This record gives sequence, C-alpha cells and structure tokens, in this order.
Amino acid sequence: MTPTFDTVVRLLKQLPGLGHRSGERLALHLLVERSERLNPLVEALSAAAAAVRRCGRCGNLAEDELCVVCADGRRDPATVCVVEQVPDLAAIERSAAYGGVYHVLHGKLSPINGVGPDHLNLATLSDRLSNGEVSELILALSNDVEGEATCHYITSLLPDTGVKFSRIGFGLPSGGGVVFADAVTLKNALDGRREYH
Amino acid sequence: MTPTFDTVVRLLKQLPGLGHRSGERLALHLLVERSERLNPLVEALSAAAAAVRRCGRCGNLAEDELCVVCADGRRDPATVCVVEQVPDLAAIERSAAYGGVYHVLHGKLSPINGVGPDHLNLATLSDRLSNGEVSELILALSNDVEGEATCHYITSLLPDTGVKFSRIGFGLPSGGGVVFADAVTLKNALDGRREYH
Repeated sequence: MTPTFDTVVRLLKQLPGLGHRSGERLALHLLVERSERLNPLVEALSAAAAAVRRCGRCGNLAEDELCVVCADGRRDPATVCVVEQVPDLAAIERSAAYGGVYHVLHGKLSPINGVGPDHLNLATLSDRLSNGEVSELILALSNDVEGEATCHYITSLLPDTGVKFSRIGFGLPSGGGVVFADAVTLKNALDGRREYH
Repeated sequence: MTPTFDTVVRLLKQLPGLGHRSGERLALHLLVERSERLNPLVEALSAAAAAVRRCGRCGNLAEDELCVVCADGRRDPATVCVVEQVPDLAAIERSAAYGGVYHVLHGKLSPINGVGPDHLNLATLSDRLSNGEVSELILALSNDVEGEATCHYITSLLPDTGVKFSRIGFGLPSGGGVVFADAVTLKNALDGRREYH
C-alpha cells in the first residue's frame, strides 16, 4: 500500500499465527482505524523488553532476580514441576492445582529440529537437584515422543540424587501439549501423576 | 507472568483476530523467543505511524499528498472504483484486473452500528464527481444489505452528474466482502459489472 505500511505487514506476517491477511488487518487497525492503540502497545512492548528477563533459578519470566513463583514463600520448594515453555507454566498456574515451584526447559529434545541437551535449561536443573532441596520432580512435558525422550534424558542424567521422579499423566490427550489442556484436565493430570522409570 | 509482560498481553488481545492465547504466544515470541524481531517491528510501526496518512483525493493510504494509485499517470482517472476499506483496494490491486482509480469510503452505511453518511468519506466523492472528470463509478461494495444500501445512497445523492454508475457483480458470493474474494473472482466481478439503477 505504502512502503512503510508494507514493511509493517511484512514483519507482522512473520510472527506465529499471523498470515498476510491478518497482518494487513492488524497493521490497518493499529495505523489507521484505532491508531490511538499504537503508542500504548509500542510503549508496553519496549517496557517489557527492558524489564523482562529469565528467573535465575527456574527460567520463568521475571522482572527481578527471581520470578513471582520462586519468590513466593508459600510455594513448596521441595516439589519442582518441569515444563517446556513459559505458557505451559501459565496454564498450570491458571488451574490453581499446584503449590510447588517450576523449572522451565525452554524446549524439548528434538534431534530432527537440531535441539539437543545443550539448547535446554538443564544445567541449572542439575544444580537444583544436586543441592538436596528437591524431593520430587514432576515431569509436565508434552505427551509425545519428544516429551518422553526429554523425560528419559532427565531421569538418566540424574539417577543418584534421591529425587523421586513423576510424570504428569492422566487426562493429557495423546499428541497434545500442556498449553492446550483445560484447567480440570491439568488438575486431573497433576493429581494422577505416576512414578517415572 | 510479570507486570510488564501481562500489560503487553492485555493490549495484544484487544487487537482484531487475537485472543488471550495468541496474544500470550505473540508476546512470548517477541520478548523472549525471538526478541531480535521486536526492535525492527517497533521501529517499522513508529515509522509507518509517522509517515502514513490518507490520500487527499481518494482516501487510500498514502505517504505523500496523493497515494501511489492517484499519483500514477498510467491509471485512468475517469473510472473510479468505490470500495469500503483499504484492504478491499489492496485485494483488487492484487487481481491486476483494474486500471482506473479508487475512492475509499472507510466503511459502509450501517444504522444498526451507528454508521451514517457523515461517517463515510463521501464529501470528497461528491467533489470528484461534480468536476466532470469522472465518467464511470464502479460500486465495489460488499454484496450484503449494508453494501446495497450504501450503493443506493451514493446514486441517489448524485443523480444528475452524468456519471455512469455500475455495480461490481458476477462472482462475488452473497454475504461476503471484497477482501475475502480471490483474484479470479474479483476479475470476473469487474468484467461482469452491470449498470446500477
């Protein structure tokens, strides 16, 4: 339409879930129809980009050294729930069925996509398990081959720590990720977790 | 997740076509997973917001006084295609089936939504038709009740200008807007236009 408008559309359509028409629709909305929404959004994005970092303990989003979950004294630090991504953590928090803390891997093992152990947030997980504060590790990873492989890798990596490993289980549909499950399904899956070997 | 992150998600989910999960997904993508994409997008949005305005003649997006269509000497200024929105214009341009110019109403008459003639870009349309340069006005508005009412209003508003009115017609499915049609359908509709009375 115009060079600067087309640049916006080109950048928007690269984002996940957006195509050419939805990018064009969003650009028109922000630049013409509801242009009063643009500045607050740009300012919020810039503020978040400056403020958001990874929690030094679990890898969740944080604005201080620790995320709100790790900094919350009412959470049980002996129970750690391992998730792939931050939205998985958010989905479990929305279910209000869990009182422990988390560890975010930021991915799962996927040799076909070139994702190996070095690409995941595993070093700090080893540290957390080695210092004896963790009694149970709940593996809330996707119910698919890559999720299972990642669970297997984690348990084989840390065999002698005395930590009980469990695998989130009942209710999670086959082939689906944690983020797609509803709150009741997640509660069932947490309650019905089984030991992992 | 964090206050600044949640603000971004809250603003994103207000945008057309985005809900809570897609907003969360986009925010995570821009702030964490592919944060190198954030600055180019913010800069492109700011540049477009500063540069984009409405074409003084037709209402299309422009960066100068006239849009690229109105400024193009190879376009036939005697044939004017009236569309509701800028994406409709973009869709017709993609069909490469039209050599005239445009007039963008920025809406259609919709009493139920409080959209009356004063809300549409009609004053400049009257001016364009009155000065005798236009020989045909192609009404490429949606094939629905509001689109028909808008066509009727335009023709009744300007009865004695000697301008031939035509209505884009064949191929546009009932109830659908111009922006959803594919290039061949739009070409058929332009070729098969019928006189409007």
